[in-house]
Amino acid sequence: MTATTRTTTDVAIVGAGPAGLMLAHLLQRAGIDSVAIDLRGREEIENTHRAGILEQDSVRLLVESGVSERVLRDGYRHAGIDLAFGGGGHRIDFEALVGASVQLYPQTDVFIDLADARERDGGDVRFGVSEVSVADLTGDRPSMRFTDADGVRHEVAARILVGADGSRSICRHEFPESLRRQFFREYPFAWFGILCEAPPSSEELIYSHSERGFALISQRTETLQRMYFQCDPAEDVTAWSDERIWEELQARVGANGYALKEGPITSKVVLPFRSFVQEPMRHGNLVLAGDAAHTVPPTGAKGLNLALADVRVLAEELELHLRGDEVALDRYAERALQRVWKAQHFSYWMTTMLHRLPEASDFDVRRQVGELTSLVTSAAGSTYLAEGYTGWPS
Amino acid sequence: MTATTRTTTDVAIVGAGPAGLMLAHLLQRAGIDSVAIDLRGREEIENTHRAGILEQDSVRLLVESGVSERVLRDGYRHAGIDLAFGGGGHRIDFEALVGASVQLYPQTDVFIDLADARERDGGDVRFGVSEVSVADLTGDRPSMRFTDADGVRHEVAARILVGADGSRSICRHEFPESLRRQFFREYPFAWFGILCEAPPSSEELIYSHSERGFALISQRTETLQRMYFQCDPAEDVTAWSDERIWEELQARVGANGYALKEGPITSKVVLPFRSFVQEPMRHGNLVLAGDAAHTVPPTGAKGLNLALADVRVLAEELELHLRGDEVALDRYAERALQRVWKAQHFSYWMTTMLHRLPEASDFDVRRQVGELTSLVTSAAGSTYLAEGYTGWPS
Repeated sequence: MTATTRTTTDVAIVGAGPAGLMLAHLLQRAGIDSVAIDLRGREEIENTHRAGILEQDSVRLLVESGVSERVLRDGYRHAGIDLAFGGGGHRIDFEALVGASVQLYPQTDVFIDLADARERDGGDVRFGVSEVSVADLTGDRPSMRFTDADGVRHEVAARILVGADGSRSICRHEFPESLRRQFFREYPFAWFGILCEAPPSSEELIYSHSERGFALISQRTETLQRMYFQCDPAEDVTAWSDERIWEELQARVGANGYALKEGPITSKVVLPFRSFVQEPMRHGNLVLAGDAAHTVPPTGAKGLNLALADVRVLAEELELHLRGDEVALDRYAERALQRVWKAQHFSYWMTTMLHRLPEASDFDVRRQVGELTSLVTSAAGSTYLAEGYTGWPS
Repeated sequence: MTATTRTTTDVAIVGAGPAGLMLAHLLQRAGIDSVAIDLRGREEIENTHRAGILEQDSVRLLVESGVSERVLRDGYRHAGIDLAFGGGGHRIDFEALVGASVQLYPQTDVFIDLADARERDGGDVRFGVSEVSVADLTGDRPSMRFTDADGVRHEVAARILVGADGSRSICRHEFPESLRRQFFREYPFAWFGILCEAPPSSEELIYSHSERGFALISQRTETLQRMYFQCDPAEDVTAWSDERIWEELQARVGANGYALKEGPITSKVVLPFRSFVQEPMRHGNLVLAGDAAHTVPPTGAKGLNLALADVRVLAEELELHLRGDEVALDRYAERALQRVWKAQHFSYWMTTMLHRLPEASDFDVRRQVGELTSLVTSAAGSTYLAEGYTGWPS
């Protein structure tokens, strides 16, 4: 039998992605100890390319809590997006409509900044662990168990356990089936995403509706771009040569008067679409945060932002809880879910407004154009979209 | 062989419902002659109970063109609606948000006012005709043929033919199949509508979302009310006793904190849901207006308003056409369709936001509540809805 190293902390965090690390960072600033673990190695997480749009409050959180100055220096401020449909482009001017902007800054860089800050501040983070479990969720001695990268077995006793372990969460499954509700929606399409070595085709994101389906043109740096087009969830990336990909992308945005600057494609991936929420977000001494509790389709760029909004609220309420406020954790769940369902709707709305459903009739396509026309010709409609895109106040 | 009476006019109008009669009225004010006919008798049309909410510009049209003062005297000004969901009601204050209101005034009264105005002004309107046809749509001698209520056969030669003959339009079918596109959407539910002898349960309309499905509480007079609840399209009204109807209505609005004043139910009807558009709205010398060209589901109260908006634009463009403007009729079709597709989206949006789809998952119901929450907590979102409900400028 292997010896087990026993330690104690205030908050044990399963998952050391952006949600887990940001929580650990905020807790430390409030004088609360934590241990965060992740099954993945640090390099593996750094090489997972995900969303790249940060809401204004996400940027503020990173900067004001002392995690990152780089998000302002290396990121790109986007004061709007283009909605492209019916043969032309229509800019939604966030700055003018709601006095807010978003920041193009990849999730992988957010993670690097957070991991660096944890190292700088002496935070206890263990990457590449295995055999993770949580125990005694409703009793006096909740704990998190794992084997570290060196093969040492650990048991961390904590006052609160946090499941920030992403969309394949193990913590989520610790909620008894009789107490939890899971809300699902699958979509009959996916995104074909590419990274390509080319200059930007546009300064801001282009969300393009067309009879051939949706396309999203986004950026990364001056020499690297990220683009997506709606595809079948079973699409095989190997069936798509660079030439065929460019033809499809150019056709979709060309219908709306845009032309893309092409270059070598360095990555091809199919991203599935799914909406998911688990309720409640708290069970005994275990609370969930981020993708562990909810997944959104990528159209509204809400996933990472929602995770950061969760832990911002969670850090506040954990502090109150540890000082004896018995309703703080339930209040966290309630506050977080308010935003989650607004974001779920926003993501669904952006998705269904812009994508072509396989079973769509001609009526549906025309109606989408009717909706997009209503939106861009209404200051109120455009503002409503801008509020959701740049992020609601928490 | 029966003798045929031949006459001539400027504009021959198939259909003498609100769209046809309003058009005839506006044309007369511009010095343009017309003949309007309808298969139905005047009494039959008067007894067809339909929508009861007039957009602000519809009211203005009736008053300013000299059709009706009664709409202001006998109608009820509504400065908002209640959106009821998630256990409570939330008022959308049109007056405060967009400086506009709507008027509760039944379609049957709009028709009576229009028919009275036509009589007063000596307009040529023939109710209860039969064997209606139109001929020579693309040649020099377009005409409308019919047999009048006394059995006399007529041929009216005209410069332009207008199909304002409702959702079962015969004129619509005169467009060659190769030139027309028909856009359809069916819905997997209908409305169960009642008229009841009771005082109003609310001063304004209540749009109520619940897990049991949608309900709409509207008014008619101080002693007569109109209410609806979502049902199966194949629902049999005879299976519904008054008691069972009240139980269902009270349960649906009770979930959101409302209680209804009950009374004897004098009418029970199932109203089907359908979205439809035919394009183009012009072929040669024939133009379509109102339900003949498009049908909306009743949720947004757009049907009658869209018909009146059509003929307001059509009267303008017909005047220009008859003075030699060769693109006027195509401009009518284009202007009308812009509004039609916005209204199609608005009606679809109100419908899908508030109704429970038979195949709805728990996710879908929660997402609807997320959307409704987003809307009522956003001045921009509420304004966007208020703009659509009170009517876009033409």
